[in-house]
Amino acid sequence: MSERVFQVLNVDPNCHARRGQLTTAHGVVDTPVFMPIGTAGAVKGVLPEQLEAMEAQVILANTYHFMIRPGVDIVQKLGGLHRFMAWDHPILTDSGGYQVFSLASLNRIDDEGAHFASHIDGRQYHLNAEIATDIQNRLGADIIMCFDQCTPFPAKQSELEIAVKRTVQWAARCKQAHANAKQLLFAIVQGGTDLDLRTTCAQQLVDLDFPGYAMGGLSVGEGHDHMIATVTHTAPLLPLDKPRYLMGVGTPADLIASVREGIDMFDCVLPTRNGRNGFAFTENGPVRMRNAVHADSDMPVEPGCNCPCCKNYTRAAVRHFFKYGEIQGPILLSLHNLTFFQRLMRQMRSAIEAGQFKAWADEQLPRYRSLYET
Amino acid sequence: MSERVFQVLNVDPNCHARRGQLTTAHGVVDTPVFMPIGTAGAVKGVLPEQLEAMEAQVILANTYHFMIRPGVDIVQKLGGLHRFMAWDHPILTDSGGYQVFSLASLNRIDDEGAHFASHIDGRQYHLNAEIATDIQNRLGADIIMCFDQCTPFPAKQSELEIAVKRTVQWAARCKQAHANAKQLLFAIVQGGTDLDLRTTCAQQLVDLDFPGYAMGGLSVGEGHDHMIATVTHTAPLLPLDKPRYLMGVGTPADLIASVREGIDMFDCVLPTRNGRNGFAFTENGPVRMRNAVHADSDMPVEPGCNCPCCKNYTRAAVRHFFKYGEIQGPILLSLHNLTFFQRLMRQMRSAIEAGQFKAWADEQLPRYRSLYET
Repeated sequence: MSERVFQVLNVDPNCHARRGQLTTAHGVVDTPVFMPIGTAGAVKGVLPEQLEAMEAQVILANTYHFMIRPGVDIVQKLGGLHRFMAWDHPILTDSGGYQVFSLASLNRIDDEGAHFASHIDGRQYHLNAEIATDIQNRLGADIIMCFDQCTPFPAKQSELEIAVKRTVQWAARCKQAHANAKQLLFAIVQGGTDLDLRTTCAQQLVDLDFPGYAMGGLSVGEGHDHMIATVTHTAPLLPLDKPRYLMGVGTPADLIASVREGIDMFDCVLPTRNGRNGFAFTENGPVRMRNAVHADSDMPVEPGCNCPCCKNYTRAAVRHFFKYGEIQGPILLSLHNLTFFQRLMRQMRSAIEAGQFKAWADEQLPRYRSLYET
Repeated sequence: MSERVFQVLNVDPNCHARRGQLTTAHGVVDTPVFMPIGTAGAVKGVLPEQLEAMEAQVILANTYHFMIRPGVDIVQKLGGLHRFMAWDHPILTDSGGYQVFSLASLNRIDDEGAHFASHIDGRQYHLNAEIATDIQNRLGADIIMCFDQCTPFPAKQSELEIAVKRTVQWAARCKQAHANAKQLLFAIVQGGTDLDLRTTCAQQLVDLDFPGYAMGGLSVGEGHDHMIATVTHTAPLLPLDKPRYLMGVGTPADLIASVREGIDMFDCVLPTRNGRNGFAFTENGPVRMRNAVHADSDMPVEPGCNCPCCKNYTRAAVRHFFKYGEIQGPILLSLHNLTFFQRLMRQMRSAIEAGQFKAWADEQLPRYRSLYET
């Protein structure tokens, strides 16, 4: 893979927002981009053709989940993640690190790596830089992530320092272990909300030279302002000509504020998880579909939206599906919410292309913050 | 609505199978036809555009379920069932009778009608010929059904006789009450497996003159042979120029044997209910997707099938979804099974058009009976 995997096409004249294209083995991704999450091989309730229809460009799958079931051997034997997930477009896998620290029962962690018990069946696993890279090489995603140590919020200073040290050492080992030139290996900047640690981590990772950089350990409870302060500080420490990925983010306001600071990629469970729970994202604020006020509403969930939910169904019907446990409800709102997020990203890409992102964000950011109370 | 709502286009030269067209207020239905079931406003897990893609022509909704929730007033206020279900093609509603006898807690039934408590919340309801017709008039389906008394299997002779007597009386009352000329009101022949009672019931209903006739009280435990014997006896008692609908049927063999005897319409939960449970219908027999044998299979569920499941996913992935509770499994197999049933009906329509249905059925019926052990 040549150096030119990422091209910045436009930069907004009044902020750091940029419009780019990331070239992967399975196609070009227009950035800023939001990646739907297909944790265990599928974006829950949404078919690949429906993801294509909403112009999703790249989806995320979780290494940790595939490791546990069905197991990496099976996916590899069948031809890799693209075949397994029926998605012939770009895929990104995380390294498993985040789930090891958030989901699994951690038995031991040291500079070598992590030993943990699966949250499903208690089976013992070992994950470290080399194993996480090998697994991701075998799963075959287009973009893979370095194994990192993610810290909670709040975390002790000593914890943050150890995490940063290990994250950098592990990134070097991942780069060394990486054995598939078709896959882009991104490094992850850790350091919590400690800006000096973010600086150290970013600089050391940049010295190692990766084709892309993520920020991890955010959206873990620190709140919008601390998160954006950290993003604002860290983004300029990363190379201008490499994609920047803010992991696990976020709300509409989080996305807008981060794009303004030069972030190119996002993933988040919000649209699908909230959708399954009856929470609809719209440009005029949340709509909670279980509420009685929708019982006889003939409006679509979001007027003007062209998703399979809004094109066809009344709020009354969607509310009926949620109230009475019909699987149609979670399906329809997952489709709607993902469509909303894709539309929001398209609006941002257009605003950057027009050189008007700053003005657009100045109007939309406070509006979305207030609507979604972030 | 003119008398010519049903046209027989071809009759197989060697059996009673016929190829027809039923004209409704929302379009023409090619028969023999299989109707997917959208009990509570949705074919579970399947979107309207997916039903269109598999060429489903008419779907069934359950009056009993709509009565209980969200209630008929809401559906009517919003513009009727087609709008509520986001289905601008033909819809058939049953009368609620079957659910009153199978799902609800029946408090009292007499010649007037039925008093019962909802299986959901115990609320008291009253259903009779006039109420069931009025509800269906207000829901606005294209085809509606007379309120009937459905008998279990086995049933006492006296029970069967009372049910037939009431079913005929109620049919006359339904016809009298029916107040929407755009809807086709079908009568239902009851009588269990008692052929004399079927004769009596059929003749009396034919004298009342309906635009279509159904057979009810079958597929309730009597088995394939008794069911087909009853169909074979009853179908010729019904007018040649009216559609014949076998309610709640059935397996592939049930469908083939019934089409051979001149049945035009079917509905059944089998494809969707079995699909949700990991049971796939294929032309080479059932495939139980939870089985370990599929764990690393790169075959589609049914080779050659063009459904969204078989076009895209390996058996390994579908098995993974079922084994680990991913909603994708039930969605994909519901799509596949409904596609299989639509394909089977198309095969039958083509065989009739070619004048070769009898030969086709002689080959396929024993094969499907043995594959699906009916």
